[in-house]
Amino acid sequence: MAKIDTSEIKKLDTRSVTICEATRQMLDKAQRDGVETAFDRAASMKPCPIGADSACCKHCSMGPCRLNSKDPYGKVGVCGADIDTIMSRNFARMVASGAAAHTDHGMSMLDLFREVVNGHIKEYGIKDVKKLMEVAQSVGIETDSREVSDIAMDLYNELEKTYTQIEGEIPFAKRVPPKTLETWRKQGIVPRGAMREIMELMHRTHMGVDQQYENITRQISRTALADGWGGSLVATEISDILFGTPSPVQVEVNMGVLKENMVNIIVHGHEPNLFESMLVSVNAPVLVEAAKAAGADGINLVGMCCSGAEMLVRHGIPHAGNFMSTEAVLVTGAVDAMCVDVQCIKQGLAKVADCYNTPLFTTNTRCHIEGAVHIDFNEHKPLDCTDEIVIKAISRFKNRTAAIEIPQIINKGVHGFSYEYINYMLGGSFRSGFTPLNENIINGRIRGVAGVVGCTNPRVRQDWVHVELVKELIKNDVLVLQTGCSQIALAKAGLTTPEAAVLAGPGLQEVCEAVGMPPVLGLGSCVDNSRILIAAAEMVKTGGLGESIADLPAAGAAPEWMSEKAISIGHYFVASGVYTVFGVTFPVVDGTRFQKLLFEELEEKGMGKWGFAVDPYEMARMMIAHIDKKRQQLGIDKTRERILVDMADRRAIETA
Amino acid sequence: MAKIDTSEIKKLDTRSVTICEATRQMLDKAQRDGVETAFDRAASMKPCPIGADSACCKHCSMGPCRLNSKDPYGKVGVCGADIDTIMSRNFARMVASGAAAHTDHGMSMLDLFREVVNGHIKEYGIKDVKKLMEVAQSVGIETDSREVSDIAMDLYNELEKTYTQIEGEIPFAKRVPPKTLETWRKQGIVPRGAMREIMELMHRTHMGVDQQYENITRQISRTALADGWGGSLVATEISDILFGTPSPVQVEVNMGVLKENMVNIIVHGHEPNLFESMLVSVNAPVLVEAAKAAGADGINLVGMCCSGAEMLVRHGIPHAGNFMSTEAVLVTGAVDAMCVDVQCIKQGLAKVADCYNTPLFTTNTRCHIEGAVHIDFNEHKPLDCTDEIVIKAISRFKNRTAAIEIPQIINKGVHGFSYEYINYMLGGSFRSGFTPLNENIINGRIRGVAGVVGCTNPRVRQDWVHVELVKELIKNDVLVLQTGCSQIALAKAGLTTPEAAVLAGPGLQEVCEAVGMPPVLGLGSCVDNSRILIAAAEMVKTGGLGESIADLPAAGAAPEWMSEKAISIGHYFVASGVYTVFGVTFPVVDGTRFQKLLFEELEEKGMGKWGFAVDPYEMARMMIAHIDKKRQQLGIDKTRERILVDMADRRAIETA
Repeated sequence: MAKIDTSEIKKLDTRSVTICEATRQMLDKAQRDGVETAFDRAASMKPCPIGADSACCKHCSMGPCRLNSKDPYGKVGVCGADIDTIMSRNFARMVASGAAAHTDHGMSMLDLFREVVNGHIKEYGIKDVKKLMEVAQSVGIETDSREVSDIAMDLYNELEKTYTQIEGEIPFAKRVPPKTLETWRKQGIVPRGAMREIMELMHRTHMGVDQQYENITRQISRTALADGWGGSLVATEISDILFGTPSPVQVEVNMGVLKENMVNIIVHGHEPNLFESMLVSVNAPVLVEAAKAAGADGINLVGMCCSGAEMLVRHGIPHAGNFMSTEAVLVTGAVDAMCVDVQCIKQGLAKVADCYNTPLFTTNTRCHIEGAVHIDFNEHKPLDCTDEIVIKAISRFKNRTAAIEIPQIINKGVHGFSYEYINYMLGGSFRSGFTPLNENIINGRIRGVAGVVGCTNPRVRQDWVHVELVKELIKNDVLVLQTGCSQIALAKAGLTTPEAAVLAGPGLQEVCEAVGMPPVLGLGSCVDNSRILIAAAEMVKTGGLGESIADLPAAGAAPEWMSEKAISIGHYFVASGVYTVFGVTFPVVDGTRFQKLLFEELEEKGMGKWGFAVDPYEMARMMIAHIDKKRQQLGIDKTRERILVDMADRRAIETA
Repeated sequence: MAKIDTSEIKKLDTRSVTICEATRQMLDKAQRDGVETAFDRAASMKPCPIGADSACCKHCSMGPCRLNSKDPYGKVGVCGADIDTIMSRNFARMVASGAAAHTDHGMSMLDLFREVVNGHIKEYGIKDVKKLMEVAQSVGIETDSREVSDIAMDLYNELEKTYTQIEGEIPFAKRVPPKTLETWRKQGIVPRGAMREIMELMHRTHMGVDQQYENITRQISRTALADGWGGSLVATEISDILFGTPSPVQVEVNMGVLKENMVNIIVHGHEPNLFESMLVSVNAPVLVEAAKAAGADGINLVGMCCSGAEMLVRHGIPHAGNFMSTEAVLVTGAVDAMCVDVQCIKQGLAKVADCYNTPLFTTNTRCHIEGAVHIDFNEHKPLDCTDEIVIKAISRFKNRTAAIEIPQIINKGVHGFSYEYINYMLGGSFRSGFTPLNENIINGRIRGVAGVVGCTNPRVRQDWVHVELVKELIKNDVLVLQTGCSQIALAKAGLTTPEAAVLAGPGLQEVCEAVGMPPVLGLGSCVDNSRILIAAAEMVKTGGLGESIADLPAAGAAPEWMSEKAISIGHYFVASGVYTVFGVTFPVVDGTRFQKLLFEELEEKGMGKWGFAVDPYEMARMMIAHIDKKRQQLGIDKTRERILVDMADRRAIETA
């Protein structure tokens, strides 16, 4: 094993950095093995304080310029850019990159869809014709008495505009509540094609172009909306059409899903096509036989990160852990292959994988990593790639040299609450709809709805902020919708079971028990935050909770966010009308006009607004206060009292 | 006058920061007036040394991470990203922004062209039908016996793909020399639509996506080529079609073009449509009469920066100075209105303008500036905007309060050497072509061709590096092509006159005298660097100088670069096959693999390569050595000896 000098690794207090017991156990092992992870690097890398405040600019070579966060208006950059220009431009580039990530992902799905529809690709097909019809109808495509393939090709052509159109409004603008859309039109932020908006945002953040933070923020909003209602929504809808729309499924989560006597293959990334192909490969009799011939009981396919979350909700594939556990899982020694596609793949994985003789495979032309083996995934011959990875995993199983230590922890939960399923679950087959949800909100059993989403981040205790925040919310009768790594944190904490309803306040508990659902609904990956947008639009449409998304008693949070995608997601929720609270850190200087715009003034323009808190209880308090404000504005605040949770209550929850 | 506290301004040695005598005079005045400029701010703002080396990463909130330039492989970021990943991602974002700027500009021109062709806009028209035909033919559009409007609409539809196409190769790939195109195909870097490439580059630079610097560099090249042969080339070609293709014109440059007794209006920016409309407005009899009624002798329209350079070469409009003179020119007190569109507009202009009661107008939705008045420029009613600005300028003239001091310096030159004109100039009407140029290169009269382009930057002495470099090159018989702010530096130094041929080496001098051209040819604005690409392609096509652009005895330089656009331009020249040397600073850590790739290995793959030097003589030496290497490879090195220029020679040049 190629190990690094153990004297270099400062002894981490592994209990302080995560509440994930399996990850902690593996971090302890990593320390014994002399293997460094992102937790170690975070401990030794002091974040640049000026960069963290977004008070520096390197958009031209007259700089890089650094302003003073303590006196933000005391000086300006060489070109004259002030703190608001600099921060808003930096924020804009985060949104541009985050939106580009989701958009490029969505376009990959759409490219695949086109090739399936025109018959060039036979290995995938249209799995959910009902969803195809619904999506086609939502953008005004005639579906009566027409061939599925014709409808599909029309849908392809329509949705391509989501990316390429240079004028007008993206197709899914038709799904936005009319009053929300009216606000966007008034603000001039209805997106054209996502690529158009990203290009313009990158232009406007160039030196000497847009230098008025409010104007920059308009293009930030437009670009973020092109992500949420564009690139991300297309990714979700097309993935459902090709691979099936999720419905609740009992799942297993945590590192115990790895099996010592099986060939363990982990798929980690974001685009489902690789994972779907791997699912075919691991079930191929010849490969299963090969695994058995190598002495294994079989092949064990496990997900991580977001494509893992998609496969979890769509097919019930077990999930080993979220973003901050991807290095730790390799420390088990039990992973016979990890294959990745795009986004949130730590470059550090290559070194850890090498330490445990685990082959790491990159598969997407857009993501190569030093030290990983690249096997290009081609949708026209998907099994060429995934079969080869399985063969290599079997070979590694046969020649395992690393000692195996698998944390024996498995958590069970129910995930897969797509918008479509919620619609069915609440209304039943014949009267599907959101009416029961809205009614329960109006009558106060459910106080409001919160989306708790996003990454994990070694700058805060892994999973802890997610779990504490969600507990606090459900205790206060707030129904929680979840995606991505946050959902996995709650699954590991056991809150995605129907039984977790006991942790909810009495109103929410009653609803959960009546419907038989958990108080925490796992919806999918981070592009599937689009499912929350659609649910919000449906709540508005159903009636009784105002006319725009901004009227809903709802809030969002990404308590342990890490990526630029998170900023893009946060901003599309804000622009859509949702109060969105981020944790960890926030890239603005306190007391500046740009901060005031994001944190207060956008709401005055009919949108949502940003919030920031590191402490989960403070975060919950802010979200609940906002929900209560909206209830009051809707005139539905009289039916219930606020429950104040004290430390004793919290301890009771923790031991529940 | 709203002035800042003069005690804050450190006394600048104004002679050390610029060789532009007019700018120096105004900086002295600014100091007396207590007005701060970018020169002052550059003196007091220490560039962040880590950022300048591109050794920091703020692509996620686990950071910002800072590596050590002195020990670049000693540590990695929290995610594990090493110095090569970090630097290449940073470089990629510069290219993404630079390419987006040119591409968005090109798309504006194309949008305008479409509206003109379909008759929605009457205020502009197709001015150069010959060029329309040539461009249409270059992309395979049938032109024989067809209506101009039909050809134009076909051209619009074809060129729109430059931005939007999601597969295949951009239309102008047809104009790339076959062997160069073959190299690109082999490397997988032929661009699809520019918006597609920018989106993918922004995705790939997201945390946890592309983490192999060579792979990132492939997408950098593809995106940069989508700028050079895409967005920029479309901007140039469509502008020529709409406003006329430049041909040589005698021009006046420097601040002396301002007239104390006239209403002085400066247009500063990049897109010619605003300036073209302003040209109509300032000639409207009613407005000229209004100016006279206000006591002026008339209206004096003056350009600055790149749209200024375009109007200079296209219509001979006087030009007041380059990027680092835009604040200084306001210090004259003689500017009655400055109106800007996009790119390289310093936010600091607002404050300086305010100090001299000069109204500053922003006109483009993509560029607002605090303290400027925004009058939106709408191509459907262009005069609404420009007439209003003229009226406001007249009003300011009438109410001038600032003391006027105009540096009485005017330099004359001949500019406007479009590719088309060079073709004509060298070959004549009946035998137009590049054969005489190639022959003179082969016979050694002309040693090679250099493009010297780019910004000015307060981190080096304004204009000095440009001028010294160009003098050194022409002395060594290297013909110099120029665009943008560099061209203005040389015009102010008097080198764009035919008489400047005396400063050239004997071979180049002979050619210049025979043709009657200056040794330094001004081609236009920075998007017009595309004219250099087309000239290079024509040199290859003409024959005798190799089969690809990389074979040509040619080199490029941006000795005082400042913007991300410059990096995109530099990289599209490199990817096209040109050795390109930058000055000031370069965003890489010495001794890293990414540096080696840019500075050496790209050339081994059949492209050009980057170079870096601060000193103009060293820069010239590097470029000439490269030209000589190419001459040797072509077998045409025997015909001439290298002239070594010593200090005595240099002094002789300077006093010439």
